[in-house]
Amino acid sequence: MKKKIVILGSTGSIGQQSLEVIKQYSNEFEVVALSGWEEIKLLQEQISFYKPKIAVVKNEIIARNLKKNLDKQNNIEILCGTNGLINIATLEEADIIVVAITGIASLIPTFEAVKRGKKIALASKEAMVVGGELLVREAISKNAKIIPIDSEHSAILQCLKNEKKDCVEKIILTASGGALYNFTEAALKNVTVEDALNHPTWKMGKKVTIDSATLMNKGLEVIEAKWFFNIPANKIEIVIHPQSYVHSMVQFTDGTILAQIGEHNMKIPIQYALFYPNRTINNFPRLELTKIGQLTFKKPYFSKFPCIKLAYQALEIGGTMPAVLNGANEIAVDAFLNNQISFLAIPQIIQDTMKEHKAKHNPNIKDILDADYWARERALNFCMNIKNSNK
Amino acid sequence: MKKKIVILGSTGSIGQQSLEVIKQYSNEFEVVALSGWEEIKLLQEQISFYKPKIAVVKNEIIARNLKKNLDKQNNIEILCGTNGLINIATLEEADIIVVAITGIASLIPTFEAVKRGKKIALASKEAMVVGGELLVREAISKNAKIIPIDSEHSAILQCLKNEKKDCVEKIILTASGGALYNFTEAALKNVTVEDALNHPTWKMGKKVTIDSATLMNKGLEVIEAKWFFNIPANKIEIVIHPQSYVHSMVQFTDGTILAQIGEHNMKIPIQYALFYPNRTINNFPRLELTKIGQLTFKKPYFSKFPCIKLAYQALEIGGTMPAVLNGANEIAVDAFLNNQISFLAIPQIIQDTMKEHKAKHNPNIKDILDADYWARERALNFCMNIKNSNK
Repeated sequence: MKKKIVILGSTGSIGQQSLEVIKQYSNEFEVVALSGWEEIKLLQEQISFYKPKIAVVKNEIIARNLKKNLDKQNNIEILCGTNGLINIATLEEADIIVVAITGIASLIPTFEAVKRGKKIALASKEAMVVGGELLVREAISKNAKIIPIDSEHSAILQCLKNEKKDCVEKIILTASGGALYNFTEAALKNVTVEDALNHPTWKMGKKVTIDSATLMNKGLEVIEAKWFFNIPANKIEIVIHPQSYVHSMVQFTDGTILAQIGEHNMKIPIQYALFYPNRTINNFPRLELTKIGQLTFKKPYFSKFPCIKLAYQALEIGGTMPAVLNGANEIAVDAFLNNQISFLAIPQIIQDTMKEHKAKHNPNIKDILDADYWARERALNFCMNIKNSNK
Repeated sequence: MKKKIVILGSTGSIGQQSLEVIKQYSNEFEVVALSGWEEIKLLQEQISFYKPKIAVVKNEIIARNLKKNLDKQNNIEILCGTNGLINIATLEEADIIVVAITGIASLIPTFEAVKRGKKIALASKEAMVVGGELLVREAISKNAKIIPIDSEHSAILQCLKNEKKDCVEKIILTASGGALYNFTEAALKNVTVEDALNHPTWKMGKKVTIDSATLMNKGLEVIEAKWFFNIPANKIEIVIHPQSYVHSMVQFTDGTILAQIGEHNMKIPIQYALFYPNRTINNFPRLELTKIGQLTFKKPYFSKFPCIKLAYQALEIGGTMPAVLNGANEIAVDAFLNNQISFLAIPQIIQDTMKEHKAKHNPNIKDILDADYWARERALNFCMNIKNSNK
């Protein structure tokens, strides 16, 4: 019988690639629901092709427009907003929920899916960063599975497969270093948006590319790794690997390192998550190590990239602090992308926001969302101050 | 209860390192028998320290000398020759048989241990190269386990762990390239013994170091890999990796590569084999990828190193041909080490010997030993002819 798939965020990059993987294995999977938010045109195409029973968009207006454009014969149900997302994330018949929504909006539907004991293929960093403690606790009690889709955590999952947890000495997260790794501290002061968007290996959205340049991306992944694999922060190390072919590694207590290596192709971890715990054949181009010639590794300079330290701090403090880190970061990155603040102001704003927050421990969903909201307001304020003082 | 260990070849490099590992885990293991052949002094020390019940040496004269030197209170039983080796390889009480004898002498005791359904930690290349088909068939029927000790096959075992066999696209054996990889074809004509013994990464015995320079070492490992993992030869690839930190890799059908990486420390695969399928903590120095900085990979030039092609040919022909390849190689390497033939004569002699052999399929132990004997005689003859023509 075909596995029934729901995709939250089907019009984004990971959502689209998930659909391409599903298309290739149309004997194995069937799409039962999609959410596309505002990208009506693409969503409409996806609906025509994959014929889901439900689609979710941002609001009633978009829903009406979509309905109008669809074939009259199409009986698709169109839902709106967060309730719509929750509806499809908890769909009784769904076997796998792919969560590929950007931002903290992913938290609530992911949490609801976990509560129903679903298998979740999670691409949205934020859900695990801000709600990891909550999601993992709930997943254990409801026997839900949360499988990572991003390349680093998929790599770690593959290296850890069937190894005993007490044999793990450390997790080695690889980082490309982003666009600015070789900039001097002086040069970092004058970084332009264009500089920071010039990522060496992966083509990604703007927000993630800036996170990659500040290394916050890796900081967030440290937090995710802690929750995905139940590994303390002091056993999670970051290594700069500019080529991004080694997606991550695990070092065991006998000194052995296992590494997962492959092309820059997100469809591989997507496929791995969908078929987990099995592997399946594909015809994607293979990585030829002898053509690449070399893989290089460097220590990250934390002093030049304080976002990493902030992420470790937030993880150590725990509770609602990772939500504050994440919320403040989103606002600061947005302000940088809009030329309102400098590159180096990003970590400063996050740090200032974190300083003013008293973390609440064992937070529930509302505590997390409140902390996020508070952090955004506060960070926005810091950004405005900088913008005004620059006038 | 402690696991009872027998070590065949305890005075060799792998034997000694196995004892060091056992010493470190003296709560887990107990040495019940050792074989030391001719190295009386070291064997005597090992007996005093590990207190085995049985020791095996080459012959009666050595046995008497050993007995004389041992403490009068020591009730150790001393056995001789192949029968002695068989005796300890099949010891009723033994849990693990470490086979670390050099040369084809490892075949018979390994085969006898397999027939008793033992767990065997196999360091001796030759047993699997000449008798792989036989050993694997017998191991399946007797439920014996043969765990590789060398770094490459241990790496592959770790990468394959709990993965499904039909998901393996290829095995990627890494090779340092040996001492002569960067020599031109012209320069290879005038290689001295000293040149060929100048191995870039691993410190090993002379025979193995020359095998590494001719790349026959890797050819033999291809044959071993086929039998250890039941993978056809066309799915086993060799990649030159001069630093020897990536001990080998497996590429899966989804395009993912898993690599096992670590220090140049044979105690790691020894420990892995002894504790298999578990890992155990140790305090060996850890590999720091950021200190090494880079890992490089190159295609091997088969034309410059014909031994690789000969090994693939022997594997393809099968039956007794790998025994002929191995026997002729041992004789040719020995003649080269004694300055009787040139470096390039090594593959020539192997090829000439293989040409004259008609492989016997589904060989029994006697067929294999006969083929080995025949190949050595024939290869010796080729060597004498070369030596005489050089006078």
